[in-house]
Amino acid sequence: MKSPHCILLAHGSRDSRWCETFESGLESIKTLLQHPSSLAYMEMATPRLEQVIEQQYEAGTRVFEILPLFFAAGRHLLIDVPEQLDLLRHRWSDVTITLHEPLGKEPEFWTFVGDMLNEKIPVLTPTD
Amino acid sequence: MKSPHCILLAHGSRDSRWCETFESGLESIKTLLQHPSSLAYMEMATPRLEQVIEQQYEAGTRVFEILPLFFAAGRHLLIDVPEQLDLLRHRWSDVTITLHEPLGKEPEFWTFVGDMLNEKIPVLTPTD
Repeated sequence: MKSPHCILLAHGSRDSRWCETFESGLESIKTLLQHPSSLAYMEMATPRLEQVIEQQYEAGTRVFEILPLFFAAGRHLLIDVPEQLDLLRHRWSDVTITLHEPLGKEPEFWTFVGDMLNEKIPVLTPTD
Repeated sequence: MKSPHCILLAHGSRDSRWCETFESGLESIKTLLQHPSSLAYMEMATPRLEQVIEQQYEAGTRVFEILPLFFAAGRHLLIDVPEQLDLLRHRWSDVTITLHEPLGKEPEFWTFVGDMLNEKIPVLTPTD
């Protein structure tokens, strides 16, 4: 039985306020998560994806599950990240890395957006 | 009583596959939404935010509610979009435009991410 390590992969930004939203977001759900989980950035902020994987690999983790906190897949998720992961798989033959779909590919995500929109912007009654 | 028009604001990309994820996502929840809603992009794709507002204004809409499909606020949401909206408010004095927080500022969003992670990556039993 190999316990996975989950990585929430965000794009990254030079703006620390941007990164802070992800950091406090993950912190807020840490007790909810069933697996050890880390945040990693693709670029412009640290820790980078390969740094997190390397550090966890050295600590004994062999199974990685990456959930991209991206709405959609463009060049980054279609080309850059898969290439990066292939290099890591080549480096360590005993590692299993799964790159999940970005959030926008999940029907549940859009239901969540619809519910949030309905909640934030209530329907006015004729007396409003 | 003024009925609002909701705008889901996405960053935009030159990659049509990226935009398609948003377009089909909104399409999938159209029947769920209580208000007429459109998708708009900030840059690199059309329709742009100001185009959607202009078109809806001409059709009689005076109340706009913008939900940014951004995880966090960086330069775009903190500076560019507010500046753009101020210009539109200056142009039409009878318009009300509300820019909501990006998704990552909502505690419910992180709970959603946590639930999704737990669902996608189940806990292994000792027999697995």
